[in-house]
Amino acid sequence: MHNENLSKQLEFIKEIDKLKYIQRKTKIFNSNRHENDAEHSWHLAMMVMVMAEHANAPIDMLKVIKMVLIHDIVEIDSGDVFFYDTTKNHSNTDEELLAANRIFGLLPEEQAQQLIEIWKEFKAGETDDAKFAKSMDRLAPMMQNHSNNGGTWKEFNVPYQKVHNLKNYIQKGSITMWRYAESILNESLEKGYILKD
Amino acid sequence: MHNENLSKQLEFIKEIDKLKYIQRKTKIFNSNRHENDAEHSWHLAMMVMVMAEHANAPIDMLKVIKMVLIHDIVEIDSGDVFFYDTTKNHSNTDEELLAANRIFGLLPEEQAQQLIEIWKEFKAGETDDAKFAKSMDRLAPMMQNHSNNGGTWKEFNVPYQKVHNLKNYIQKGSITMWRYAESILNESLEKGYILKD
Repeated sequence: MHNENLSKQLEFIKEIDKLKYIQRKTKIFNSNRHENDAEHSWHLAMMVMVMAEHANAPIDMLKVIKMVLIHDIVEIDSGDVFFYDTTKNHSNTDEELLAANRIFGLLPEEQAQQLIEIWKEFKAGETDDAKFAKSMDRLAPMMQNHSNNGGTWKEFNVPYQKVHNLKNYIQKGSITMWRYAESILNESLEKGYILKD
Repeated sequence: MHNENLSKQLEFIKEIDKLKYIQRKTKIFNSNRHENDAEHSWHLAMMVMVMAEHANAPIDMLKVIKMVLIHDIVEIDSGDVFFYDTTKNHSNTDEELLAANRIFGLLPEEQAQQLIEIWKEFKAGETDDAKFAKSMDRLAPMMQNHSNNGGTWKEFNVPYQKVHNLKNYIQKGSITMWRYAESILNESLEKGYILKD
């Protein structure tokens, strides 16, 4: 029924407001202010919107925008996992799956399933759409760290090679964007924002 | 040229980070924390994504999501205009148009024109897509105020009839959403969150 759908959708919309409280390690550009997941998701959607032409393969823009808008919603329950934290599993943990089922599960059945599928596709990172979405997610904090004289690389003493190893995934989504990412990484090394191992 | 496009797009992406600093009068749900324009834009995109079925007329979801993601970017230059402020013009001020030309103008020509057109369409509010986008933009702070025991209605003594007059635009985008909006407005009146004139 129409209004039963609406009630569920409104509950979901209220619930995901909590994403605005989930603080990332990364700080916004040229700033000491931590970024939250809602702002981050907005910024990624803007990146997808204006930089899709650089994807290695044509993307379904609506789907990729949906992916980045929802990709961190599970963190309402499971919290932000720092990208360079090697003690935690980053891919499809049970905790995240429970969170996805609970939060997207607030929606009418069909919508819930659709968003869970899109979220799983993003996490798996195997399709062209997911590869490009993930590339943007990996690139954004590099740009932010670069603008913040090293940002989390400096703060947590993350060495150059580790960043390089974890970030070269970007080339799966976009070789052009990876070239750019490498250039800011190398410049960060030259400027001492990040240390050689 | 490919990389010339990229440089422009990256400048735009860095520039619009400033939207995270633009504070709205409205506070996030059940909170005393003011919302910023980037978070707000993310939340509207989510509303469009899950509530499109309630639009009076079928919408182009990708375009409407783009509309709400970019609708406040001009406020980087022109600032947030409080919805109930009657001393400022809310529609397509010269200041906002200058801002749109400057900020979207950082992008490659064709993309800049496309986003300026989408932004103008939103501001004009005449197409089905713009009507639905604007409905979501008007509904969101009503939900937030309702969750905050009156929020800005109470804080700035905005009377019931004024809210009703300014918000009934919502029915142009969605009669279903307007019925819901009226129900929370009436409940707010009963609870004393908002005053009868």
